[in-house]
Amino acid sequence: MAQHNAFYAQSGGVTAVINASACGVIEACRRHPDQIGKVYAGHNGIIGALTEDLIDVSQESDETISALRHTPGGAFGSCRYKLKDIETHRAQYERLIEVFKAHDIRYFFYNGGGDSADTCLKVSQLSEKLGYPLTAIHVPKTVDNDLPITDNSPGFGSVAKYIATSTLEASLDIASMCATSTKVFVLEVMGRHAGWIAAAGALAGNGEGEPPHLVIFPEVHFDRDRVMARVEESVKLYGYCVIVVSEGARYEDGTFLADSGNTDAFGHRQLGGVAPTLAGMVKQDLGYKYHWAVADYLQRAARHLASKTDVDQAYAVGEKAVELAIAGRNAMMPAIKRVSETPYDWRIEAAPLAEVANREKYMPHEFIREDGFGITEACRQYLAPLIQGEDYPPFENGLPKVAHLKKARVERKLPEFTI
Amino acid sequence: MAQHNAFYAQSGGVTAVINASACGVIEACRRHPDQIGKVYAGHNGIIGALTEDLIDVSQESDETISALRHTPGGAFGSCRYKLKDIETHRAQYERLIEVFKAHDIRYFFYNGGGDSADTCLKVSQLSEKLGYPLTAIHVPKTVDNDLPITDNSPGFGSVAKYIATSTLEASLDIASMCATSTKVFVLEVMGRHAGWIAAAGALAGNGEGEPPHLVIFPEVHFDRDRVMARVEESVKLYGYCVIVVSEGARYEDGTFLADSGNTDAFGHRQLGGVAPTLAGMVKQDLGYKYHWAVADYLQRAARHLASKTDVDQAYAVGEKAVELAIAGRNAMMPAIKRVSETPYDWRIEAAPLAEVANREKYMPHEFIREDGFGITEACRQYLAPLIQGEDYPPFENGLPKVAHLKKARVERKLPEFTI
Repeated sequence: MAQHNAFYAQSGGVTAVINASACGVIEACRRHPDQIGKVYAGHNGIIGALTEDLIDVSQESDETISALRHTPGGAFGSCRYKLKDIETHRAQYERLIEVFKAHDIRYFFYNGGGDSADTCLKVSQLSEKLGYPLTAIHVPKTVDNDLPITDNSPGFGSVAKYIATSTLEASLDIASMCATSTKVFVLEVMGRHAGWIAAAGALAGNGEGEPPHLVIFPEVHFDRDRVMARVEESVKLYGYCVIVVSEGARYEDGTFLADSGNTDAFGHRQLGGVAPTLAGMVKQDLGYKYHWAVADYLQRAARHLASKTDVDQAYAVGEKAVELAIAGRNAMMPAIKRVSETPYDWRIEAAPLAEVANREKYMPHEFIREDGFGITEACRQYLAPLIQGEDYPPFENGLPKVAHLKKARVERKLPEFTI
Repeated sequence: MAQHNAFYAQSGGVTAVINASACGVIEACRRHPDQIGKVYAGHNGIIGALTEDLIDVSQESDETISALRHTPGGAFGSCRYKLKDIETHRAQYERLIEVFKAHDIRYFFYNGGGDSADTCLKVSQLSEKLGYPLTAIHVPKTVDNDLPITDNSPGFGSVAKYIATSTLEASLDIASMCATSTKVFVLEVMGRHAGWIAAAGALAGNGEGEPPHLVIFPEVHFDRDRVMARVEESVKLYGYCVIVVSEGARYEDGTFLADSGNTDAFGHRQLGGVAPTLAGMVKQDLGYKYHWAVADYLQRAARHLASKTDVDQAYAVGEKAVELAIAGRNAMMPAIKRVSETPYDWRIEAAPLAEVANREKYMPHEFIREDGFGITEACRQYLAPLIQGEDYPPFENGLPKVAHLKKARVERKLPEFTI
């Protein structure tokens, strides 16, 4: 089999473990020098391919590539950029082929979420439509856990572990102070459309009275009176109330809590933040002293507390992508298959990209407790294995060590292209 | 020497390592059965002593006490309650003595910050004023790092490590997305009066262009134009800008940024949050896409990322407190002495409480960079050793294991007392 080059790019919001997938792809490529020559990474994702801004990964040492496994963020740069359909934006696709041809790229690895799966599928169709032999594989990643087919999405398990741990730790803080200080604590977590991450907060406790006392999902219409009644009940029963709220929490009419149209003294739209909004309601309706936290990017960057299961799976989907590619399996995605629950066991299988693209996986109805404020046992069983195990990065001088890439650029061979 | 009982209480805002000090006190007491009988812990701090709500620590196993070392929060309950002066509130002091007498308590260990040092000093004076033989020792604790005499305050090092690590990790996230997405990230950290924690954020980077690009201290008057100019410069030079801002950031007239008097559409005072306020200014003045995070209690509860130096010191001050007490050194505080900087070495010394109480340690002027937006080399040298080393708690099922105390109550012997 002749040797050709590979292209790898990161797409969309990054995670604590997307670089572990990059590590899996690159190390697997290096194990197949007969089939795969150099790996070129797109600088800032697919934009790097369109603008011929390619990073020559062969210039990076094995040690640097290995260090990607414990480096958060997107080491080659990611982007929010979705290729349009091939019929009306043919020029962009033709440009991709030109760049791939110019650099003898015949393997395309695209590491991202739902939008990227769609892009990858379109690119996979280039082979036939534009007559260029390309094998395109999608490497799954998203903290939102909304990719179909795969049992879970790499990136989610580490956020889940971070949120569950943070909820547990902060709850101990509130519990110890509530007699004379803060009675209500609100932690805002990611998840605009689905409550997967909020659900993970519920892993912090299970027994009667154990925090969190309320989980607020985007899937359950926000009813201020019901929520406040539950907060009051929790404070009366347990002395305090811990709330994990999804950024996507919304009223029955679809309005987001964080976007309730308030304006400040200057007439400017009040800035978002579900946590402060909800905390304000608590103060207004119940008068309790409150504190709130918004984890934001901290939660998806927290490689220091990654789930070992997640890191292993992120690496494995990267590795498997290469195996699929050299086997000529165009338009596929390595998916995680849950083989057994107790003890937890998983393997990677190949899923046709056509079945993945443009489909979102929502929280099953039966994962949300009947009262809407917590998770069911089925949800707990699904989530629990995903946060198992620790995978600490090495530390140096008290801080995590991260990969420092040279990012040597590949010499351009084509005219400029404006996107 | 006769055997008498000891009282231990936690006071004020809790930390990731205050229970490590509790562990130090209790284990040291257990090593001196000839002098110290039982340890009684105040439920909810000094309130437990006043209301005779005492936890019988002798009922807790060695394993449970050992687990306190890696359990965040205040295991016996803490409180925000400051004893008034002895002249006008004599009844409270007399009550304390009654409770101590009733339970043969002759050792008083009070684990807290500046206010608690003051309370402990007053209690230490009871011995003479009310003719009761009591040895009172203050065990230092505060994330604010504002206790005098001691080189640093137990609790601070772990927050510092958490904030430095979180800044580093989130910065990698922003850096990888800034070409097409978020350009400015604002992380709000604790520190109403002093910028110690914000300064710790600066440990995340040092070289030219390394984040954080701006640190905003309470000590430096907030000048919107100057800050925005620096944000713009950073985005132009490096593609993005990471800001660590202290909750105590304020204008020249003393107004807090988070408390600028804005009201929402209902006329309610807009809720605090320096991070969203600052992010809003960035959007308004410069138009950049932003994200913001407020770490709040997460930062002081994050035992999973504690500094080993901090844990060791927190334990050591607890242990030393007991040694001072049995040596009859009334009205003292174990203080951390920096013996050498490279390699870092420290020991615990005894400091007279009279020199500690009612004095705050501010950031030295020479620790803040001349432009007001970063730290000096002297500050870096001071901070660096405090975040050294990791001290991971054991994990079980993906979550940190914490101590679960029985909290068996000591039988009451006195009439009720209303505080």
